[in-house]
Amino acid sequence: MIKYPNGKEYKLPRTKITLTKKSSLANRGMNLEDDINMSNEFYNEQKRCLIYKRPTPINIVKVDYTHGAHIIDAHFEKQSTTDYNGIYKGKYIDFEAKNTKSKTSFPLANIHKHQIEHLKNVILQGGIAFFIIEFQYYDQCFLLDARYIIDQFENGEKKSISYEQIVKKGIEIEKSFNPRLKYLDAVDKMYFI
Amino acid sequence: MIKYPNGKEYKLPRTKITLTKKSSLANRGMNLEDDINMSNEFYNEQKRCLIYKRPTPINIVKVDYTHGAHIIDAHFEKQSTTDYNGIYKGKYIDFEAKNTKSKTSFPLANIHKHQIEHLKNVILQGGIAFFIIEFQYYDQCFLLDARYIIDQFENGEKKSISYEQIVKKGIEIEKSFNPRLKYLDAVDKMYFI
Repeated sequence: MIKYPNGKEYKLPRTKITLTKKSSLANRGMNLEDDINMSNEFYNEQKRCLIYKRPTPINIVKVDYTHGAHIIDAHFEKQSTTDYNGIYKGKYIDFEAKNTKSKTSFPLANIHKHQIEHLKNVILQGGIAFFIIEFQYYDQCFLLDARYIIDQFENGEKKSISYEQIVKKGIEIEKSFNPRLKYLDAVDKMYFI
Repeated sequence: MIKYPNGKEYKLPRTKITLTKKSSLANRGMNLEDDINMSNEFYNEQKRCLIYKRPTPINIVKVDYTHGAHIIDAHFEKQSTTDYNGIYKGKYIDFEAKNTKSKTSFPLANIHKHQIEHLKNVILQGGIAFFIIEFQYYDQCFLLDARYIIDQFENGEKKSISYEQIVKKGIEIEKSFNPRLKYLDAVDKMYFI
């Protein structure tokens, strides 16, 4: 925090309530989302895969057409699936990215029941399903097979998965300049080697 | 058109400019879109596949949080991919739906260059890519392999594909009560038999 010579903290001026398209609803997972989006852009450009973020579903109530199509009344809808899907090495890929500020565990309350149902269906259809979980405190990201998370969600005795368990069961995702998250290397280790 | 005894046509009262989430930007392909969405709902429920429409990407400019998150300024963005993707019989599926009012041909101007690029990448990655093309005049829908459309788009001498060619190269999609469009049967015939 910057302090002025008078010892008072510098406060940013209150800004208007605006969101750009890259912002998430509640700022949750924003940096992780950016990192994954930029990694996908890099990977897709390299033709290594074809994976995109699904746009946030929005319920449009009113559109003003006086100067082109201008949405003037709309609401966010819950995504009934996961954030990302696509194709890699001929296989259908589907995953959800979540982050936590906790040092000790990942709270399963971060995951929605409909996402679990969706990922079970992906596995049933023969697709590859996983989570990318970021521990912000350690600046670490892990790839975890969805089957493990689903089992913990449905049968686990605790409402969270400990950091130690995630280190043990997951594969840490290496970071680089480009792609920011080398998550396909972790996919390779988990599913293709 | 309903006519009153005085011979005048009945006109619907002018309605407010509103769109529900099921409406498309310019009413283009609206019924076809509804039919496909409902067919996917049926197929997904039956666990025969897992295919969803990608939400329309929207650029959010301003959100009012005074009574929950309420979008008060936003614009439509161009979809950089196709409308539908998912998994069927373990294979990645990606397709675009288009309709035409023409009796004689499907105008290739209905397809965007970035959709062609996207579908080429799907094929490169080993996925199944196709178009569903509806001729409203004949109330007929056809499944066409994306490779044929891409070839016509890039190398064809005409700016449209004749109805006869589409009948010849495509597979007609049977209609039923549920699913409204039995398009997976056409996928089976085109790719799995």
